[in-house]
Amino acid sequence: MNTYSSSLLETAVDELAKLPGIGRKTALRLALHLLRQDEVAVENFGKTIIKLRKEIKFCKHCHNISDEEICEICSDPKRDKGLLCVVEDVRDVLAIENTNQYKGLYHVLNGIISPMEGISAADLTMDSLVKKVFKGNIDEVILALPTTIEGDTTNYYIFKQLQSANISITTIARGIAIGDELEYTDEVTLGRSILNRTPFKDAEK
Amino acid sequence: MNTYSSSLLETAVDELAKLPGIGRKTALRLALHLLRQDEVAVENFGKTIIKLRKEIKFCKHCHNISDEEICEICSDPKRDKGLLCVVEDVRDVLAIENTNQYKGLYHVLNGIISPMEGISAADLTMDSLVKKVFKGNIDEVILALPTTIEGDTTNYYIFKQLQSANISITTIARGIAIGDELEYTDEVTLGRSILNRTPFKDAEK
Repeated sequence: MNTYSSSLLETAVDELAKLPGIGRKTALRLALHLLRQDEVAVENFGKTIIKLRKEIKFCKHCHNISDEEICEICSDPKRDKGLLCVVEDVRDVLAIENTNQYKGLYHVLNGIISPMEGISAADLTMDSLVKKVFKGNIDEVILALPTTIEGDTTNYYIFKQLQSANISITTIARGIAIGDELEYTDEVTLGRSILNRTPFKDAEK
Repeated sequence: MNTYSSSLLETAVDELAKLPGIGRKTALRLALHLLRQDEVAVENFGKTIIKLRKEIKFCKHCHNISDEEICEICSDPKRDKGLLCVVEDVRDVLAIENTNQYKGLYHVLNGIISPMEGISAADLTMDSLVKKVFKGNIDEVILALPTTIEGDTTNYYIFKQLQSANISITTIARGIAIGDELEYTDEVTLGRSILNRTPFKDAEK
């Protein structure tokens, strides 16, 4: 599939195929879908995306995507300012917020250290995190990064940077997901969940 | 996931999630990807899509997507003007062109009859097809529509419309795909492939 009947279509497919997870066949399907839509609707679509990139702001404190200089979470007086949860990106903030279990603040790294993809600590909001912690006021940093080699590397890097600050550094619990069968859990997770066993708590109390 | 930290992001996710096969989670992933791109690149992306919808032309003869009034295939003097292959959309033209087995012209219906989706013959380029055939000059119409109920319905509709024209109407061969095992072929295809058996041709000759 290399000769489209129209260079306009070809350019559009090229652009759509740049999106992650979208190959040329899907890109063509999307382009044909857009061609069937109302002209005004497609113009809105294009303009919304251009506007998103042009006008987006990042919170000065936590670096999360925000419409204001300081995001809603950081400016919420009810939040525990002593608790800081370090996450990869805005999706993790959404996921944790949806649990309704966390009332502290966030720090969005905007990525994790990945030599394979050429992402180093300098590309992330690491400096801002270190400064924030050494300013005082923070009691605990919770590392909530992916359970991958890159996530572990980033965890270790952050730990080294913050070690000398007098705070506690924790990671979110890893183990068998609630509702999962032991039989179908991968060996690494199961093995670690035995090593990192926790005292039994009586849920009734 | 309903409270994003930014209304700009939310609007962009809403727009991206309108694309077929893209849910809100994927839309968010795409929006975050676009945020990481260069501002100029994202502007190009948006403008390309708007331009595609605004400036696209359809060939006056075959209704395929084209940059000119008459597409490259229709204006190619080497093509057999007596042979007309009826397809659903531009993707089928690309697929057939890639086989290098067809040297006739196309007629793009821009859809197939589908009562479920509210698409009737009037929404397609059916009138144009009928006019083209009754003008003469065409010897054979090849129906190359999907092997679905909608495809069969459309085939039958076209057959009824063109029946009185003195031309031959054929459909592309249906049967077991080259390289497929009989054992794994579905019953309907296997059953029909026996009913529609063809005389054995000696490939060596």
